[in-house]
Amino acid sequence: MSTEITLFTEGNVTSPKGYLAGAAYAGIKTYAQNKMDVGILLSESQCVSAGIYTTNKFVSPSVELTRKNINKGNVKGIFVSSGIANAGVGAQGMIDAQESLTHAAAHISVNPDELAIGTTGVIGVELPMALIRAGIPNIEITPNGGDAFARAIMTTDRIPKSAAIQLEINGSTITIGGCTKGSGMIHPNMATMLAFLTTDATLDQAFLSKELKNACDDTFNMVTIDGDTSTNDMVLILANGAANAKPIKNGTPEADLFSKALKELCDYLSYQLVKDAEGSSKVFSVSIEEAKSVEDARLAARSIASSSLVKSAIHGNDPNWGRVVAAAGYSGADLDVDKVSFFINDVTIMEAGTPIPFHRESVIAIMSRERVNLTLKLGLGNGTATAWGCELTEEYVRFNSAYTT
Amino acid sequence: MSTEITLFTEGNVTSPKGYLAGAAYAGIKTYAQNKMDVGILLSESQCVSAGIYTTNKFVSPSVELTRKNINKGNVKGIFVSSGIANAGVGAQGMIDAQESLTHAAAHISVNPDELAIGTTGVIGVELPMALIRAGIPNIEITPNGGDAFARAIMTTDRIPKSAAIQLEINGSTITIGGCTKGSGMIHPNMATMLAFLTTDATLDQAFLSKELKNACDDTFNMVTIDGDTSTNDMVLILANGAANAKPIKNGTPEADLFSKALKELCDYLSYQLVKDAEGSSKVFSVSIEEAKSVEDARLAARSIASSSLVKSAIHGNDPNWGRVVAAAGYSGADLDVDKVSFFINDVTIMEAGTPIPFHRESVIAIMSRERVNLTLKLGLGNGTATAWGCELTEEYVRFNSAYTT
Repeated sequence: MSTEITLFTEGNVTSPKGYLAGAAYAGIKTYAQNKMDVGILLSESQCVSAGIYTTNKFVSPSVELTRKNINKGNVKGIFVSSGIANAGVGAQGMIDAQESLTHAAAHISVNPDELAIGTTGVIGVELPMALIRAGIPNIEITPNGGDAFARAIMTTDRIPKSAAIQLEINGSTITIGGCTKGSGMIHPNMATMLAFLTTDATLDQAFLSKELKNACDDTFNMVTIDGDTSTNDMVLILANGAANAKPIKNGTPEADLFSKALKELCDYLSYQLVKDAEGSSKVFSVSIEEAKSVEDARLAARSIASSSLVKSAIHGNDPNWGRVVAAAGYSGADLDVDKVSFFINDVTIMEAGTPIPFHRESVIAIMSRERVNLTLKLGLGNGTATAWGCELTEEYVRFNSAYTT
Repeated sequence: MSTEITLFTEGNVTSPKGYLAGAAYAGIKTYAQNKMDVGILLSESQCVSAGIYTTNKFVSPSVELTRKNINKGNVKGIFVSSGIANAGVGAQGMIDAQESLTHAAAHISVNPDELAIGTTGVIGVELPMALIRAGIPNIEITPNGGDAFARAIMTTDRIPKSAAIQLEINGSTITIGGCTKGSGMIHPNMATMLAFLTTDATLDQAFLSKELKNACDDTFNMVTIDGDTSTNDMVLILANGAANAKPIKNGTPEADLFSKALKELCDYLSYQLVKDAEGSSKVFSVSIEEAKSVEDARLAARSIASSSLVKSAIHGNDPNWGRVVAAAGYSGADLDVDKVSFFINDVTIMEAGTPIPFHRESVIAIMSRERVNLTLKLGLGNGTATAWGCELTEEYVRFNSAYTT
């Protein structure tokens, strides 16, 4: 068995075999004239599918309808629209979500319950159904439509974000493709974030659900931009078996390899999300080591990555480690200050609870790079986790002060 | 029994009878040349005392030592220093906290365990004991020293924050005084916030502890500036009985009146804290009504008040109610979107889950005022709570990008 995994940064959701996609401009995104704002992704054959959804109690009918259809087990495609979230509009939201799927399904000759629906954009405004009805027939789905589909989910994203990964299993090539959109209010537990994944591997539903959750816990759910979680977020995966490879069974070396590849793809897409966050040009990672448990490590990593004070310090190249340790301290994770060590990139800043004198100018120079790594060793066990954050900038405030006005 | 309660905005910790206070400049706060940075507050007679402390697991030895002395029951005074937090300095922190109290106690002829200690400022730098040793003898404590004491706890605060409140009980006048400092990283559960309260009422310790907790839950713990909680926060109260009024017993109308007055004073001081937050000139309140429980109401109120997106919207006078409802949705509080109503000041924005068309220019005009009220009715019960927040500004980011550099 070869263990080669290759990431293709030019890949997308139509990189795996047997997928068609396309998009059109319906006129919903007035702030992005002539950009795509409706799109369809479709597997040519039946799929198994799995989804992970926002934990916000204020949830879009699009998420509810997708969950229902995914649970039925028939989903083989996804309809998306961007510009308006279809959230907070009362009973009309579910009516519009259903009508959107009815039109999209008719256009590609499938049943409405064979489609999931992803919407993203402004909350509290009804979907412009006249535009959507008129726009859907202009969507042409092709085997090369993955990039157009990725553009159709963008809102304030500066660039479309897609990739694919290939792995060899017993002489067969398996491909996993994906696209994502973020910006605005990305945060752990699916905050205003959409990600759609496709694969031509042959898998059963239980395995796919488990692997999607595992991959998301370590990647999309560790991404934080501003601490708000949203009404519309979801990560979906479709698997159509079109590679005609041997089925991947849980607990086998092939399963481990698939798991690793899926996580690597999600990790890459998550990193693209953070890099493209509103107003940010600098990304930082927070690695927690030696936590009492993996859960503790995740709590501490996310707490640090979402602290406004830490994010401001990253922006200012300010080695203010007190803020980092304080954010771990209020995270809920077990902490014994006398055992904590802290590093900025590879420079030791604190060892066993005591600050180590460091050459301030060197650390400022390290922090001035595009990517900064903060590592906290808690000295309590072997739980590890990594979260991603981005700097808090003046531009973020300006941007988010004037989103709807 | 008269039920009159009168707030004196010019009052302070020496407004109640039997308290002395004073401060001096020891040279710790280099960014505030010639401002006070060491101070002492002392009751002339024995006290009962109570404290509430940070929940951060990364805690200053000053907090540990104060908790120990308060628990002993002998505390009748407080030593404070500002500029350096005495946190994150290893074993030296406790040694320095103890030495500070030894010098302060000797200066005013009390035992070191009769004092609490409050420190605030930069984390990770040892207290400059030479300056503190030399500075303490310059502190002169007088019955008019409350204002100087309030200045000695300021860090990035723009103004000192003190007040007093008087109530008549059975013909006797009872006074409660207080001062507070915040800025930096104020947040629920005692984030980088000090508050010291004094009263000349006659109370027992159990009643005082209960009332302090009740008052803080509704006031200081509902204040949020940037979501970070700190290593040094505490609220302390001393009661010396110097008014020679009848003892206040739990469960009596007098107790209710004292409770109301204490809460009103803490509410006023909390509001001063938020108003003086770094980089902010605009304060907003978040009132949750009809929550399933008070705990749910507090969760939702704090979640909204600390959302970076909501705070940015407040800054931009942007009636983006979607962000407000979304922040309630991820707060953990029970929520049924179809029952939620939302108001900006008195304008209905959403009713029973459906947005109501509003005159955007009018709402923007309302939001342009110095104080904005957001009210969310959840329609699930009768839990209520109010949290305070301040806008997120470009100035906040600039300020916190360069705090130590």
